[in-house]
Amino acid sequence: MSEVVERLRQVLPPEALVTDPDRMESFRYDRAMFCPAGVPAAVVLARETAHVQAAVRAAAEFGVPVVPQGARSGLSGAANALDGCVVISLEKMDKILEIQPVDRYVVTQPGVFNAVLSRAVAEQGLFYPPDPSSWEFCSIGGNLSTNSGGLCCVKYGVTTDYVLALEVVLANGEILRTGRRTVKGVAGYDLTKLIVGSEGTLGIITEATLALRPATAKPRTMAALFGSGVAAGEAIVEIIRSGVSLSLLEIMDRTTIRAVNAYKRMDLPEDAAAMLIAQSDAGGAAGAADIATVAKLCRENAAIECIEADDEAEGDLLLEARRAALLALDELGTTMIDDVCVPRSRLADFIGATEKVARDLDITVGVLGHAGDGNMHPTVVFDATDPEQARRAQVAFDKIMEIGLELGGTITGEHGVGVLKRDWLAQEIGPVALSVHRSIKAALDPQNLLNPGKVVVS
Amino acid sequence: MSEVVERLRQVLPPEALVTDPDRMESFRYDRAMFCPAGVPAAVVLARETAHVQAAVRAAAEFGVPVVPQGARSGLSGAANALDGCVVISLEKMDKILEIQPVDRYVVTQPGVFNAVLSRAVAEQGLFYPPDPSSWEFCSIGGNLSTNSGGLCCVKYGVTTDYVLALEVVLANGEILRTGRRTVKGVAGYDLTKLIVGSEGTLGIITEATLALRPATAKPRTMAALFGSGVAAGEAIVEIIRSGVSLSLLEIMDRTTIRAVNAYKRMDLPEDAAAMLIAQSDAGGAAGAADIATVAKLCRENAAIECIEADDEAEGDLLLEARRAALLALDELGTTMIDDVCVPRSRLADFIGATEKVARDLDITVGVLGHAGDGNMHPTVVFDATDPEQARRAQVAFDKIMEIGLELGGTITGEHGVGVLKRDWLAQEIGPVALSVHRSIKAALDPQNLLNPGKVVVS
Repeated sequence: MSEVVERLRQVLPPEALVTDPDRMESFRYDRAMFCPAGVPAAVVLARETAHVQAAVRAAAEFGVPVVPQGARSGLSGAANALDGCVVISLEKMDKILEIQPVDRYVVTQPGVFNAVLSRAVAEQGLFYPPDPSSWEFCSIGGNLSTNSGGLCCVKYGVTTDYVLALEVVLANGEILRTGRRTVKGVAGYDLTKLIVGSEGTLGIITEATLALRPATAKPRTMAALFGSGVAAGEAIVEIIRSGVSLSLLEIMDRTTIRAVNAYKRMDLPEDAAAMLIAQSDAGGAAGAADIATVAKLCRENAAIECIEADDEAEGDLLLEARRAALLALDELGTTMIDDVCVPRSRLADFIGATEKVARDLDITVGVLGHAGDGNMHPTVVFDATDPEQARRAQVAFDKIMEIGLELGGTITGEHGVGVLKRDWLAQEIGPVALSVHRSIKAALDPQNLLNPGKVVVS
Repeated sequence: MSEVVERLRQVLPPEALVTDPDRMESFRYDRAMFCPAGVPAAVVLARETAHVQAAVRAAAEFGVPVVPQGARSGLSGAANALDGCVVISLEKMDKILEIQPVDRYVVTQPGVFNAVLSRAVAEQGLFYPPDPSSWEFCSIGGNLSTNSGGLCCVKYGVTTDYVLALEVVLANGEILRTGRRTVKGVAGYDLTKLIVGSEGTLGIITEATLALRPATAKPRTMAALFGSGVAAGEAIVEIIRSGVSLSLLEIMDRTTIRAVNAYKRMDLPEDAAAMLIAQSDAGGAAGAADIATVAKLCRENAAIECIEADDEAEGDLLLEARRAALLALDELGTTMIDDVCVPRSRLADFIGATEKVARDLDITVGVLGHAGDGNMHPTVVFDATDPEQARRAQVAFDKIMEIGLELGGTITGEHGVGVLKRDWLAQEIGPVALSVHRSIKAALDPQNLLNPGKVVVS
């Protein structure tokens, strides 16, 4: 038994420590493809902040790397284990600690699933907007670590916009408390937003205070069908230009629609090349006017058909279809999901260029995404047992990021860098920004113990 | 002539360098009271990023501190000169470089005044929300450096929520480009939001890309009068609890109203102890309903009178009154403006405790602020030529911050730390957070050249 495991046994209760190789196996990977994963020396199932502190201190004592993990639903390999590391899983820290309806915040442990938290606050007439498609199986801690987005970002912004305060275990085992419970506050550097999105490389989040909004009105939903992805992209640009306020604006192409129909036994129209889904939660006449505006703009921009959902249930069904898209594509083969975000004025160009990549490389790419944000998830589907196809898949995946950068976009809108896009990060941000990343990493984690090799290579 | 001035002469065009003591005098102070200010060795009036780089490199060569300055409208002494320093003023970098209506962003130099930028984007049907009361005489660069708030934060958030990308000159003279022009993006650490609010201690902002929103509907405005500040505070809590969406919710007490009447020759009602101003920009029936809800809640919570503005001009006049409050109080004597933000549920407690401080210390305190955010600006007014009164003013100023912290609030909601609240910062954030601040400062500015002694003492 290694020294670090021996020390962990001394400082942790037995139920917080896993060293059995079979049990540890499931803690090796998140949901990213083509990312290496090592074999951990131990997995710590922290029940409280003190367990995280104890584990970090034990790891620091022996210079062993620490890999923090939420629900392992990540798509960039940020939660993948390293050989001989201590995995610190936060999945058992799954309590909602406080919901404050007047000051509108919730205090939560990181292991709570996004949908669980969203439903708990909804019961009190409140709304936690960030809603990744994976909300039923992703944790708040993971959302914080990657600064997750979701479907309603187009109106309500992303995770970082809702984080008021954090409790963070630092690399030296100390507890950092960032932020505050007030709406505004500028006392000192914004350490909260520095930790959010840092993918476990600067500290381990053990508690979060998240801002809430009042519940929204019942949404009105519509779908519009287009003869080509580019036409749908052009309609989106006109919708954005109009300034109409939507709470959701998503796109799915025919490949994706077919996959969802098969997976969810749904009956979405497969004759169109692309479908937009738009939602307004403005309520009453305002919501109806928003949807009418979108329908008009879609018709003026080559929509084949516009269908308004008859009721909320029908609207929910459309959203369920969209949320299931990645799982549905997973059924067709191995998937690699891109996460490029482009300036919205370039969406049609991006869709066209992505479709060309699929044609040129003769590979399936399902085009879907948060169109209203310009955050697209072209998903390459392939047979991983065919090395030649796997190679082309990798080329397509990279080519799509390259197109994103060429159009003034970013390699990742919400999934993070992890190990999957480390080299691409350097390309996107350049040497000065990379060097600043390294300086900050070294300042907060001088031994390079926290999730080393993720995001930036030191 | 000192070595650094000699080097500046070599590397800068003559119009970018001021060394005449009389001309330099006005570059010594921002608008904070009781903050020491030194005499600079030189003032650099940068016209372009390269001038900032050259000045930073010259200062670094001789180990001379650099103090970046915007419009010197700050209220915490962050822009005050240090003895022998190089002041780098950004006021001549005052061009708006690009307005992009579809992608909804503006690229601007830092010296542009907030109101100038706001009007320029409004001409294209766009809206830049952060609107400090000082918007006519504060610069975007200063807004970024202190993460300014304003009147419409209650609905639209603060400066950091609108910053997409920055160009920053680092302590070593290199140019850091943070962020991107897309709506979303998580590639790497959020360096943008780390720089925002860092008060010139981590880098000097030379360009910013700011997100815009579509123009809002015409606002509806109302005022409500109350018999006591505490009653007004209780009404605010009920307004927040109701979830009604307001674009503005401000409070002014009788002291402030009287000062504004005298200063602006206005005719605001002086018989009430406190006045709330509420605005909805939801437009049409929704806006009318919002204002009706607020009026109803005010009446149910002891309002003496509720008055809806007849038209937009009357509403604008109320806002103009609120924006002039600090300048009006300045006419009554020397002022020290607090900037405490408390959880909104504690507003009535905060107002009551602040009034008690004024009574106990027999000193004038004008109570005003962004009530809807819990961000209050109690302003101590005193005769600075009377040492005993000045002492009590300082005690009152500090006591109000203490109350804010006791109520779970922060010492600064939007004005920043500067030198004025350095000791208070340590009290608010504690030793671990302070040590993380110092690590980050040392990582980005190892020689401690950028605005040393501001925010954190190294």
